[in-house]
Amino acid sequence: MKIIAIDSSGLVASVAIVEDDILIGEYNVQYKKTHSQTLLPMLDELKRMVELDLGTVDAIALAKGPGSFTGLRIGSATAKGLGLAMQVPLLEIPTLDGLACNLYGTDKLVCPIMDARRNQVYTGVYEFERMEQPDRNEGNMPLHYRLKTIVDQCAVPIEEIAAKCNELGGEVIFLGDGVPVFAARLSQLLTVPYSFAPAHMNRQRAAAFAMLAFTYLKEGKCVAAKDHAPEYLRLSQAEREKKEKEQG
Amino acid sequence: MKIIAIDSSGLVASVAIVEDDILIGEYNVQYKKTHSQTLLPMLDELKRMVELDLGTVDAIALAKGPGSFTGLRIGSATAKGLGLAMQVPLLEIPTLDGLACNLYGTDKLVCPIMDARRNQVYTGVYEFERMEQPDRNEGNMPLHYRLKTIVDQCAVPIEEIAAKCNELGGEVIFLGDGVPVFAARLSQLLTVPYSFAPAHMNRQRAAAFAMLAFTYLKEGKCVAAKDHAPEYLRLSQAEREKKEKEQG
Repeated sequence: MKIIAIDSSGLVASVAIVEDDILIGEYNVQYKKTHSQTLLPMLDELKRMVELDLGTVDAIALAKGPGSFTGLRIGSATAKGLGLAMQVPLLEIPTLDGLACNLYGTDKLVCPIMDARRNQVYTGVYEFERMEQPDRNEGNMPLHYRLKTIVDQCAVPIEEIAAKCNELGGEVIFLGDGVPVFAARLSQLLTVPYSFAPAHMNRQRAAAFAMLAFTYLKEGKCVAAKDHAPEYLRLSQAEREKKEKEQG
Repeated sequence: MKIIAIDSSGLVASVAIVEDDILIGEYNVQYKKTHSQTLLPMLDELKRMVELDLGTVDAIALAKGPGSFTGLRIGSATAKGLGLAMQVPLLEIPTLDGLACNLYGTDKLVCPIMDARRNQVYTGVYEFERMEQPDRNEGNMPLHYRLKTIVDQCAVPIEEIAAKCNELGGEVIFLGDGVPVFAARLSQLLTVPYSFAPAHMNRQRAAAFAMLAFTYLKEGKCVAAKDHAPEYLRLSQAEREKKEKEQG
């Protein structure tokens, strides 16, 4: 099975082409250009470099949200257009779940935080759970781990997620664009041991989203391109102001 | 500090630009083209996309070996040329150390294996060691982990590294292009629990090499571009045959 994965939910523009256990190619950029300048040209470049035949692609995976409203809409429009044109389904990966997959193989709690402005973060808490092995007599078979959600992705103040981490009591790895914003505050709030993911693991990677996407594809958790819509988790600024005005 | 990192030691061609905790961009391709067709065009593309001013780069990091002889020479020639032209030093990262950094944050032993042909693998064993925290009164400071080498990179039969893993006794994560080649054999040889890294973590990533490169840079472990040479760990086929002939 072959998947194109894209992410433009945060500061990073990211595209990846993954075939089963092989990452054929990925291109990730964290730069001040807007995603409308980067995402499609990056995919086009990658497609050309690996001579991708679009007819061999089984699905398009994308970060469905939360994240930057504009970023999500660029990603959604791109994935929707590709899905309609290529006649393949979409796989909608919750942004924070996808981010957590950067840390596959850790025994620690994983807490991605994205700066959601207005004193909130988009966040969640995850761990990697060892899956029960089938009872086989074929030698010592490899273990598998799956992403387990402990706190579903949500928009909350940093104080709330820090309190939740303290309550859970285990060591935590934080990652995401919220880290540089809230690092000092976390050192005041946290009572549990914690660390920050290094540069090569601390932002969205479409290739990591693809890991979950293969599970979704196997489980039939697909969405027709025409039915896809991003998940913002909060009202947009325009909607919020309209509501406040109406409530006067 | 800003680093350009490149890797062409195995099947992947990989370039990354990293500034401190920010991965500005990375481009990774695992495709049947030769690295001479991919590596420099990829770097050129990435440089253009993130509008990189070469004058702001402090060093060039590269996989110094072991790996494919041709691949290493392409990487070395590229890094050497860049280092000489840009007048910056090189940071030579042992290939297996760099590969192990893909799994930062794991509590398990990390064993990268690359198919070295002639019934051997290039391999090593690593773990991430929690570094002692300075005794500060500034709140709860974040922990750091550093890569610790348990078995130095080497070229050995798969049986030898499997026996070493069994002797060490802990759970192991394997990664690298040796995994698809030796997975079945490992299931026969290993007595310890083990798993394989997923697609987004199982091959060389220049961005992961950059993590070690920053440590090298801080420690002054730099090499002048003119003095750099790849480390093959074994004789090349031509050298081996010459030697056999002479001894014959």
